[in-house]
Amino acid sequence: MGLPVEFSLIARHFRPLAGPGALDLRDDAALLTPPPGRQLVLTADAMVAGVHFLPDDPPDLIGRKLLRVNLSDLAAKGAVPLSYLMTVSTPKDTPDAWFAGFAAGLAQDQATYGVTLLGGDTTSTPGPISLSLTIIGHVAPNTAVHRFGAQAGDGIWVTGTIGDGALGLAVALGRLTDPTGFLLDRYRLPQPRVGLELAGIASAGMDVSDGLVQDLGHICRASGLTAELMADAVPLSAAARTAGPDWLTTCLTGGDDYEVLLAVPPARTGALRQAAARIGVAVTQVGHFHSGPPEVMVRRASGEPFVITKGGWSHF
Amino acid sequence: MGLPVEFSLIARHFRPLAGPGALDLRDDAALLTPPPGRQLVLTADAMVAGVHFLPDDPPDLIGRKLLRVNLSDLAAKGAVPLSYLMTVSTPKDTPDAWFAGFAAGLAQDQATYGVTLLGGDTTSTPGPISLSLTIIGHVAPNTAVHRFGAQAGDGIWVTGTIGDGALGLAVALGRLTDPTGFLLDRYRLPQPRVGLELAGIASAGMDVSDGLVQDLGHICRASGLTAELMADAVPLSAAARTAGPDWLTTCLTGGDDYEVLLAVPPARTGALRQAAARIGVAVTQVGHFHSGPPEVMVRRASGEPFVITKGGWSHF
Repeated sequence: MGLPVEFSLIARHFRPLAGPGALDLRDDAALLTPPPGRQLVLTADAMVAGVHFLPDDPPDLIGRKLLRVNLSDLAAKGAVPLSYLMTVSTPKDTPDAWFAGFAAGLAQDQATYGVTLLGGDTTSTPGPISLSLTIIGHVAPNTAVHRFGAQAGDGIWVTGTIGDGALGLAVALGRLTDPTGFLLDRYRLPQPRVGLELAGIASAGMDVSDGLVQDLGHICRASGLTAELMADAVPLSAAARTAGPDWLTTCLTGGDDYEVLLAVPPARTGALRQAAARIGVAVTQVGHFHSGPPEVMVRRASGEPFVITKGGWSHF
Repeated sequence: MGLPVEFSLIARHFRPLAGPGALDLRDDAALLTPPPGRQLVLTADAMVAGVHFLPDDPPDLIGRKLLRVNLSDLAAKGAVPLSYLMTVSTPKDTPDAWFAGFAAGLAQDQATYGVTLLGGDTTSTPGPISLSLTIIGHVAPNTAVHRFGAQAGDGIWVTGTIGDGALGLAVALGRLTDPTGFLLDRYRLPQPRVGLELAGIASAGMDVSDGLVQDLGHICRASGLTAELMADAVPLSAAARTAGPDWLTTCLTGGDDYEVLLAVPPARTGALRQAAARIGVAVTQVGHFHSGPPEVMVRRASGEPFVITKGGWSHF
């Protein structure tokens, strides 16, 4: 009795990714002995071809992006990543080389971020490739950073540079040139800020995945505060600056940044800078929170409002 | 600044499903404090319209099936279900009533099985509805039942009746009549055997989702044994018996049973019967394991081989 294709796919491509508790992906469920005295942090994201990535994106980058968007959520909570489960639905004619590339990308990032595959499912689909990943991390009890908890007077801080992902998508769609390839790379391969220590530093935080203005709005609503965002303080990469001022709205509202957005009390600014330096990432203050209705006020350096019509990326 | 449709969908339909640690689905990640002294058991399954359910199936039954196929995996390991994360990718024109029905089905089964929603993601897709669910359960350390571990001389046991799901699919496709609606209901709504105590009773086990013969083959390979399956001992429902002997191969090899398949030492037969009685389900011995190459021998009551050409359902 031969085994169906599904099982040989798993054996060839996914079994090498399996870690402790995964039982070599030979069972129906995985085992996880939680790290003693730690609280688990869990999040799940789906990615669909044609929505979250382009169908002809290299498969290793698709695998790495799937893992990294979830790692980014953990990073923004201050959690240490542990392991993940994944479901992969692909058209029947998906070539073996696609799975090989996809798994190779995952293997590379598993080594980078110290995570392993715990379990999952592979199925066919009559539609586009549909991926889902659930990641598990851990924190010391009651130290996870939330969207709520920002205080009036806290600074608004971001890691890295903002807007590269959205500009990279514009490059992929032929709407912008990108001589160095930097922007396209930023779109295809997020740099989750894993290891950034947040406990005792940030009063609130999240990752920027749906656009800085929209995501900042989430912190405003959850924390009951107004955010003053200084558009000209938002850190842009050299490639984004080269694109020119017409693209600034795209940078502020586009998605796919996967940087960390934080509310940090002034007294903790030094600690934030030290924590960021330890993982080799820049942090920049882009505004502050104050009492008021839960909304985001975007201003130019002159103090004038910066009018934005599109609030951010919605998946609907 | 209005919120995108995605967020109101989550608020209306999924927030009421959120349990402890889900932070009202208002954050990027959920928190889970593992039950002290317990080992976690995790599994994930994907379901795609047109592959795992029919696009016009009632949405409440789709939600319940998604949850139940995962509960079935936990049940077959002897795990107590705790909570789940879910990703939901739907076409842009999916009506609100679909989400309402889907969530109502989940709410009903959350109450039945004592689980709550921990987190997830909603996205659009240009393809069919694609769902993925990761469920978390727990067991006393090192008591989970695996596919490996069956011993020569163990009886092969199944819960409930076998083949109803596959026949129900034949009904849905117009290939078989079903005057009572029993078979279609069994296809659409699995009955996971949650609460069946297996620790100290079964030496190996799994749920029957891809067909009895194929899934029994997994236990044979994992345990290094031959299985003798007595085709005429396999418990069939009254509706399946009415379908007639031409459908027996379908019953033995079709998928969607979601019963539990176990290897049980003869000395533990009584304990198995008592455990099954406590959750009100029948258990039936359908064969035994013996030393030999890892394969499934299917025999008639006469001892003659029962020839099966199709080993089971592959998703590829």
